[in-house]
Amino acid sequence: MADATKPLRIALAQLNPTVGDIDGNASLVADWIARARGAGADLVVFPELTLPGYPPEDLLLKPHFLAANQRALERLAADASGIVAMVGFAEPTGLEADARHDAPKPRPAHNALAVLSNGRVAAVYRKQRLPNYGVFDEARYFEPGTDPMVHAVDGVEIGLTICEDVWEPGPPASLEAQAGAALIVNPSGSPYLRGKGRDREEMFADRARAYGVPFAFCNLVGGQDELVFDGHSFVVDAGGSVVARARQFEEDLLVCELGGGAPVAELLGDLDEVYAALTLGLRDYVAKNGFEHVLVAVSGGIDSALVALIAVDALAPERVTCVVMPSPHSSPETQADAREIAENLGTELIELPIEPAMQAYDQLLGIDGNRPATGAFLHEQEPAAGSPGLAAENIQARIRGNLLMAISNARGWLVLTTGNKSELSVGYATLYGDMAGGFAVIKDVPKTLVYRLVERRNERSGRELVPTSVIERAPSAELRPDQRDEDSLPPYDLLDRVLEAYVERDTSREEMVAAGLPGDVVDEVIALVDRSEYKRRQAPPGIRITSKAFGRDRRLPITNRYRG
Amino acid sequence: MADATKPLRIALAQLNPTVGDIDGNASLVADWIARARGAGADLVVFPELTLPGYPPEDLLLKPHFLAANQRALERLAADASGIVAMVGFAEPTGLEADARHDAPKPRPAHNALAVLSNGRVAAVYRKQRLPNYGVFDEARYFEPGTDPMVHAVDGVEIGLTICEDVWEPGPPASLEAQAGAALIVNPSGSPYLRGKGRDREEMFADRARAYGVPFAFCNLVGGQDELVFDGHSFVVDAGGSVVARARQFEEDLLVCELGGGAPVAELLGDLDEVYAALTLGLRDYVAKNGFEHVLVAVSGGIDSALVALIAVDALAPERVTCVVMPSPHSSPETQADAREIAENLGTELIELPIEPAMQAYDQLLGIDGNRPATGAFLHEQEPAAGSPGLAAENIQARIRGNLLMAISNARGWLVLTTGNKSELSVGYATLYGDMAGGFAVIKDVPKTLVYRLVERRNERSGRELVPTSVIERAPSAELRPDQRDEDSLPPYDLLDRVLEAYVERDTSREEMVAAGLPGDVVDEVIALVDRSEYKRRQAPPGIRITSKAFGRDRRLPITNRYRG
Repeated sequence: MADATKPLRIALAQLNPTVGDIDGNASLVADWIARARGAGADLVVFPELTLPGYPPEDLLLKPHFLAANQRALERLAADASGIVAMVGFAEPTGLEADARHDAPKPRPAHNALAVLSNGRVAAVYRKQRLPNYGVFDEARYFEPGTDPMVHAVDGVEIGLTICEDVWEPGPPASLEAQAGAALIVNPSGSPYLRGKGRDREEMFADRARAYGVPFAFCNLVGGQDELVFDGHSFVVDAGGSVVARARQFEEDLLVCELGGGAPVAELLGDLDEVYAALTLGLRDYVAKNGFEHVLVAVSGGIDSALVALIAVDALAPERVTCVVMPSPHSSPETQADAREIAENLGTELIELPIEPAMQAYDQLLGIDGNRPATGAFLHEQEPAAGSPGLAAENIQARIRGNLLMAISNARGWLVLTTGNKSELSVGYATLYGDMAGGFAVIKDVPKTLVYRLVERRNERSGRELVPTSVIERAPSAELRPDQRDEDSLPPYDLLDRVLEAYVERDTSREEMVAAGLPGDVVDEVIALVDRSEYKRRQAPPGIRITSKAFGRDRRLPITNRYRG
Repeated sequence: MADATKPLRIALAQLNPTVGDIDGNASLVADWIARARGAGADLVVFPELTLPGYPPEDLLLKPHFLAANQRALERLAADASGIVAMVGFAEPTGLEADARHDAPKPRPAHNALAVLSNGRVAAVYRKQRLPNYGVFDEARYFEPGTDPMVHAVDGVEIGLTICEDVWEPGPPASLEAQAGAALIVNPSGSPYLRGKGRDREEMFADRARAYGVPFAFCNLVGGQDELVFDGHSFVVDAGGSVVARARQFEEDLLVCELGGGAPVAELLGDLDEVYAALTLGLRDYVAKNGFEHVLVAVSGGIDSALVALIAVDALAPERVTCVVMPSPHSSPETQADAREIAENLGTELIELPIEPAMQAYDQLLGIDGNRPATGAFLHEQEPAAGSPGLAAENIQARIRGNLLMAISNARGWLVLTTGNKSELSVGYATLYGDMAGGFAVIKDVPKTLVYRLVERRNERSGRELVPTSVIERAPSAELRPDQRDEDSLPPYDLLDRVLEAYVERDTSREEMVAAGLPGDVVDEVIALVDRSEYKRRQAPPGIRITSKAFGRDRRLPITNRYRG
C-alpha cells in the first residue's frame, strides 16, 4: 500500500469486456488489476457491469447467469491484494418471479460496484438512479440502491457512484461530498453519441464545482450490437478542469495521482470521432461474433464506398471482399468506380453479373409481358395497390442480396449492408435486397454525413481512396434507366434536415413548417417514415451515432395511424 | 340518471381501438357511450388508454400526440350527459426533456382514466403501478400516480384502478375499499396469453374476497402488432364469483346491474382460444395496416396449412392467395396436398416452379461445379466456416421469398410467413427465404401445437380441410433429396420440451438435465437458440400466445458469449 505521505494513486481501467463472457471478463479484470498494481496504483476502478458485460439485457433474468457472475466476483477478490479494486457486477436480489402470466415481476438484481480489498469483497455499492429512457431499460432489471457510500482507501475517503447516479444534481454524490469524500468515482457504461463527450465533461465539471470534489469517470470501451462505448475516461479536479483523460475508442489504463496531473489525450474532431465509432463498432461486432471475414457489395456509389473504407480500417484489406454485381442498368462509370475502390483498398473483388437471374425471374413472373408465363399475374395488378415497375426493381436488389448470402453461407462470412439513415428513414431500400446482411454499418449515418466522412477519409489518406467521381455523381439506385434518387425523394440536404427534426427530435409537423421547412416535403417525409416502420423492423442491427437511431432507442408501433 | 331506488347499471365497453388513431378512437367512444346510454347504463367504463390506443409506445414521447389525445378527451366530455363515462387516456405531465445527450428524461405522461360527467372532465385517476417487465415498458413513459380515488356515480361509490394496480394486493384497491367503494373498476390493456384468463379470474376473485367488494375488469379487444387483446371483460361479486362475462376475442358491451346477474359467456377451450387469438391477431394486422389481401406459400406441410386455414378464417377465401412453388426436390405428394388445401379452402392458387431461377443461380455461382462460372468460389470455401450445400438449400428458399415479394410488390398484398416457434427458436429457417414476409402468424406456436391446432380445426369443420397425409407425413423442408427435419433436429416432442424450459422459463442447463432432459440435446438446443438470435432480429412480427415470445418480451443481445 502507498506511503501515507504520498498522494493516492488511482488507475481507471478503460477495458473492453464481452457481454455474457463472465470468465473472459473476470480474467481481463485480473490482468488489469495486475497492470494497475504494476503501475503503482493504490486503487483501480473498472467500468459499470464489467463482469457480465454491458448491457446484458435479458441475460439478467436468468438466475444462473447472476449466480455465475457473483461466483466470478468472489474468485476475483483473491487478486485484490496490495491494491483496492472496484468492479462492476450484477448483484442478485434473490427475489423469485411470480409464475402467473403477466403478474408483476420483481427486479432480479442490483447494478452494483464491489470493493475488493485484502482478498475479500469489502463492500458493495448499489446504483440508485436507473436510466429507463432512450436505449436504457434498467428499470426492467434492477432494484435501485438506497444508500450513498464512502469507502476509505489508504486513509483517503472515496465516494462511490455508478453512471446515471450523477447525471442529475443531488444524492448520492452530494451526500458523499458532505460525508468528506476526497474523490468521487463514477464507473460507467456510457454509450457514444456524436458530441456526447463535451456534455459529459461539462456535466462532471458542474458536479465537481458544486460539491468541491474531484470526480473520476471510468467508461467502457468497445462495440456491443448497436452500441459503441467510446472510453474517454477522465478525471476533473474540484474546480471542474479535466486533469487526466484516456484515449477515445481504445482500451487504456489511465493512471494519475489525486491532486496531480496525468496524460490528457486530445479529443478527436467531429468527423474523426464518428469514423472511429463506426470502425470500432464494426470491428467488435465481427470479432465478438466470431467472424473472420466480411463481404461488401460495392456499387460505385458513395454509401458502399464508405462501408468498404470502414471495413478495411476496422479489419484489414485481406479480411474484406468486395462484390460487384452489374445489371443492364448499371453504368460503365459506376462499375469502373466500384472496381477502382476495391483496388485502392487492396481487397479481393468478385464480379457477378445478375442479368441471367433477372431473365429467369422475368420468365417466371412474366414481367416484360411478352412471354407466356405461368404466373403472368403482373398484368392484373390494381394500379392503386402495387406496381410491376417496383417489383422489377426490387427483384434486382433481391438477386444481389441472394448472391451475397450465398457467398456468406458457403464461406461463413458476414455480409455488411450499405444503407444510410436517410434511405432507411424513408424506406428507400429493398427488404431482403440491399437490406440483406448481418450488420448495417452506416444505418445511423445521414446521407449528407456519408459524403463528409468519405471526403475526410480521403483527406486523411492524402489520396483519392474513393474517386472524386463517386462523390460528385448524382445518387442513383441504378435499378432502371436514368434513375436518380431525387426523382423519388427530396434533395438530401433538405431531406436530412426534415429527418433530423422528425426522427431525432420528435418535432411536430406544425413546428417544422414554422421553422421554415416546406409543408409538402414535411408531409411526404412523415408519411414515408411512418410507412416504413415494418421495413426497419426487419433491418439488421447497426451502429448508433445519433441521439435517436433506428434501434432500441426508437420504439414505434408498426400498426399506427398517427401522422404528425 | 337512474332512479335512486334502482341498482346502478354498469356497462363495460370492450372495444377495439387502433393505436395512433385518436380521432377514430374518440368517435368509437362517442358511439359506445350512446349505445351504453341506450342500454340504460348509468356508468360506462372504457379500457386502458382507449384514446391513444394501446400500447402507443414512443408516440407518447411526442408532445403533440399527447396534446391531441387530451383535446379529443375534452371534446368527448360533451357526450357524457345522462351517463358517466370513464375513459382511458394519456395525461401529459408537461415535463420537458433535457436536451443533453442521454441526460435523464422525465416521463411525459400519466396512464390515466378520466371521469366524464355532466359534459365535463370531472376527475382524473392516475395509474400507480407501472408494469415494466415482459412486454411492458411503462416506466419508460409514465409518471406513477399517488392517490387512490373513489368517485360517486348516482350516489354509489366507485373505486378507480387501472390494470396492474390490482395485480398485487394492497393500494390503491385496498384503500378504496376502506373508503367505502361499492365496486372497483379496472380498465385494462391486458394482452392474451394461453391460459391467462384463468389467472385473471382467480386474481380478481382473490381481491374481491380480500376486500369484500365486487370488481369490474374491462379489457381491450383486438390485435396490435404482436399483441392480441382478448377482451374477456367480467364482473366478480364480493364473494369472488364471476357474475358477468363478455365474449373473448370480439367486441362486446357487457351491461349488468350492481348486485345483479348478467350474461356469462362460456370460456373457449384451450385450442379454440389459441386459434381465436391467431385469427384475431392476423385479421387486425391486415385491417389496421390497410391490406386487402394476403399471400401464403403452401408447401404441402403442416405449418403452411395452418397459416392458410387461419388466413381464410380471419379474412375470407377470396382475400387469400395460395402460392405453390415446386422445385426438383418437391415430392408429387406434397405438391398434390398443397393444391388440395387451396382447393378445400376455396382460395386462388398460383403455381410457380422455381427450377429456372435455380439454374440461373447455379450458373452464376457454379454451385454444381461442372460449369465454368464467373463466381466459382464455392469450391474454395473452408469446410469449418460455411457450407456449399447450405448455400444451395438457402437459395431455393430465397427464390421463393423473392417470388412472393414480387407478387406482393406488384399487387400490394401482404405476405404471411409460415414458420413456427420451434423452427425459429433453433434457426431452422432461411433468412430472406421462408422468413420473408410481413407477418409471421404462427411464430409463437410450437410445432407440436401446430399439429393439434390443425387437427382441431379439421374436427370443427367436420371434414379434412387439411388432408390426413399432411398431418401424418414426417416433416421436411424439401430442400434436398430425402431431407427430413429430424436429420438436423431432435424429434419435435423432445425439442419443444427443451424449448419451453429454455426459452419460456429461463431454466438452466443443469436444471433441465436434472429434470430428465438428455444433456446432449439440451446443449445442442441451447447453442442453436443462442446462435440464431441474429436471424430472429430480422424476422417479421407475429402473434404472441405464450409467456415468452420472440418479440418485445425477450430481449437478448446478439453479441453474447453466455451459454447455459
